[in-house]
Amino acid sequence: MPTVNIVEERDARGVVKEVYDDIKRTRGIDFIPNFWKTIAAHPPTLKRTWESLKEIMAPGALDTCTKEMIAIAVSATNGCEYCVRSHTAQARKAGMTDEMLGELMAVVGMFNETNRLAEGYRVAVDDFLKDPV
Amino acid sequence: MPTVNIVEERDARGVVKEVYDDIKRTRGIDFIPNFWKTIAAHPPTLKRTWESLKEIMAPGALDTCTKEMIAIAVSATNGCEYCVRSHTAQARKAGMTDEMLGELMAVVGMFNETNRLAEGYRVAVDDFLKDPV
Amino acid sequence: MPTVNIVEERDARGVVKEVYDDIKRTRGIDFIPNFWKTIAAHPPTLKRTWESLKEIMAPGALDTCTKEMIAIAVSATNGCEYCVRSHTAQARKAGMTDEMLGELMAVVGMFNETNRLAEGYRVAVDDFLKDPV
Amino acid sequence: MPTVNIVEERDARGVVKEVYDDIKRTRGIDFIPNFWKTIAAHPPTLKRTWESLKEIMAPGALDTCTKEMIAIAVSATNGCEYCVRSHTAQARKAGMTDEMLGELMAVVGMFNETNRLAEGYRVAVDDFLKDPV
Amino acid sequence: MPTVNIVEERDARGVVKEVYDDIKRTRGIDFIPNFWKTIAAHPPTLKRTWESLKEIMAPGALDTCTKEMIAIAVSATNGCEYCVRSHTAQARKAGMTDEMLGELMAVVGMFNETNRLAEGYRVAVDDFLKDPV
Amino acid sequence: MPTVNIVEERDARGVVKEVYDDIKRTRGIDFIPNFWKTIAAHPPTLKRTWESLKEIMAPGALDTCTKEMIAIAVSATNGCEYCVRSHTAQARKAGMTDEMLGELMAVVGMFNETNRLAEGYRVAVDDFLKDPV
Repeated sequence: MPTVNIVEERDARGVVKEVYDDIKRTRGIDFIPNFWKTIAAHPPTLKRTWESLKEIMAPGALDTCTKEMIAIAVSATNGCEYCVRSHTAQARKAGMTDEMLGELMAVVGMFNETNRLAEGYRVAVDDFLKDPV
Repeated sequence: MPTVNIVEERDARGVVKEVYDDIKRTRGIDFIPNFWKTIAAHPPTLKRTWESLKEIMAPGALDTCTKEMIAIAVSATNGCEYCVRSHTAQARKAGMTDEMLGELMAVVGMFNETNRLAEGYRVAVDDFLKDPV
Repeated sequence: MPTVNIVEERDARGVVKEVYDDIKRTRGIDFIPNFWKTIAAHPPTLKRTWESLKEIMAPGALDTCTKEMIAIAVSATNGCEYCVRSHTAQARKAGMTDEMLGELMAVVGMFNETNRLAEGYRVAVDDFLKDPV
Repeated sequence: MPTVNIVEERDARGVVKEVYDDIKRTRGIDFIPNFWKTIAAHPPTLKRTWESLKEIMAPGALDTCTKEMIAIAVSATNGCEYCVRSHTAQARKAGMTDEMLGELMAVVGMFNETNRLAEGYRVAVDDFLKDPV
Repeated sequence: MPTVNIVEERDARGVVKEVYDDIKRTRGIDFIPNFWKTIAAHPPTLKRTWESLKEIMAPGALDTCTKEMIAIAVSATNGCEYCVRSHTAQARKAGMTDEMLGELMAVVGMFNETNRLAEGYRVAVDDFLKDPV
Repeated sequence: MPTVNIVEERDARGVVKEVYDDIKRTRGIDFIPNFWKTIAAHPPTLKRTWESLKEIMAPGALDTCTKEMIAIAVSATNGCEYCVRSHTAQARKAGMTDEMLGELMAVVGMFNETNRLAEGYRVAVDDFLKDPV
């Protein structure tokens, strides 16, 4: 159970109902996942988070599948179970194959390793890396 | 300064020299970045890290530019300066535009936020997210 | 199950019993939460942790409710389930309302986002931020 | 130097200029800190981040000083230098005394310790902590 | 359930079967733990991870028990349940006593606390700490 | 510069002076490192942190060198520069050789990688790992 009372669809009113309707329409789903029903306990957070996420995840210079894979990379690095599961499902819906997931996880694992080697040895930043390139 | 004595190219012998040569050949560069000169303080770590990274970063189901952007996502989430700078330079070399970097950072920021909302409210995993999909 | 054998109240002796009694007295509870029964597997850790925590959480320049909310912020950022649940319960006991929790989580989410933007772009520290102010 | 070209005030146009003006007006300052000049490299991120932050940091159930202290707690836990310095300066402007900062850091340190004890021993969640309270 | 289909022993072929056999032989066990059966969904990751881990965990300047305790320290700091449980079991097999685990966790807790104090106050690096020593 | 005014030795009074004297005596040094001079801005934090650390780092079931290496593992995983440098210096003073540091960093890197693979694939905890062993 979460630490707050979730807002079920049948109890949604006002801004919460509007956001729930937009989530279902935008995602093409007929139910509201727990993440949204939970943060709906604080309606301004629900509204701002959904609108930000909707804007950010719209296809642009990067396609949706790439964005969802980046979301998996972040969530795996932070160790967030809900987020890993949710973004893996959405990345798959957006076209991520098993092979792509395999390579994604290999990259995520590798750079979590090298990040710690760089921090643990305090590698000095090369001069050629100090400016925008 | 790092916490170990780095191995300059002129002092590289044996396995260290072989790896240095392979790095320059594979990357098409004529010098060795500090990361490799630092972890060369422990030759087996240099060799294993380079060979793993070379295998993982070869184009496959994901292209090099996508892999480098995932590396930026991991490094920004971990807050590793050297790694952020290094992978940003390499992603740009592999074709990442300013617009792609902008969207990448927006996605990284967004999901670091939602990861913490999910953890902070202890959002319950939906049933449809519990199995491989 | 934890990775060690917990010390039940009926088995508490010596320093463990003294700490258990002090926890119940100080907190006004009639049982020992699992956190303490688990770290009691190493009595010096139980004693030092309890005494440090008791000193730190006493009302001072910050009130107990604020301190517990800071504890939630830390625990959500670290993704520690036990700690999020425990400090949410204690913050509520100390007066945290649903609205306060909503704002707390919004702040926690927001700055986890901006932290990663600052790290991911390697924002340079402004001169006016370099000294104590 | 950051990894992108920052947008100086004299070069700000359109949405970037509007946000810069709003930052100066809202904060009562006559310059733009580096954080905003850096993320301005991607104008939609600048606009969304500023508007979200402005909404979240407005006084509500929690006052500004408490919100800034929570921001310090998050930033210290994530180890983000820019953010620690920036929020410490803003918390002080909002009334945080040396004594309050001292207690804040003590709480942040303490719960980073107990978070790891809970994770390291895999403390089991007590039944009374499983539901919203 | 993990986010991929695991590879059971009866279905292992080629490189996966070879690695499974080597794991059982090297560890002296007659089954394959879930970690390996899960990452086997991407055979190159299984092979590279096992070979790296086998090389790194072989006794050298540090004995196996010390290495497993370091693995617990990393896993507790990252909050990885599977890893904490797995390395605790292996450290015990390698000779870690309850007293050693107690001291290990005390050290892990303590330095997670001081890490955040150093970050939160932005402690300046002393001159004597700037070079390899 | 840190975010608070540090307490120089010549200005130390009362409990701060007592702790400074004890640090110099216990460590066999004739100056106070910046970490302690900085947290001395809040004397109760200085006193409690020093006394906790002194108790925890005393040789017990684990020797001082092992404890300092665990501190490096934690600090590298958290990416804390000050702490990495400080504990590397102290581990070397306690007998850590270059080879030991090399193996330590290899282990730290490896398990930061496997931690993220376990989280990213949501590896299920094996039954044999669910209880204390």
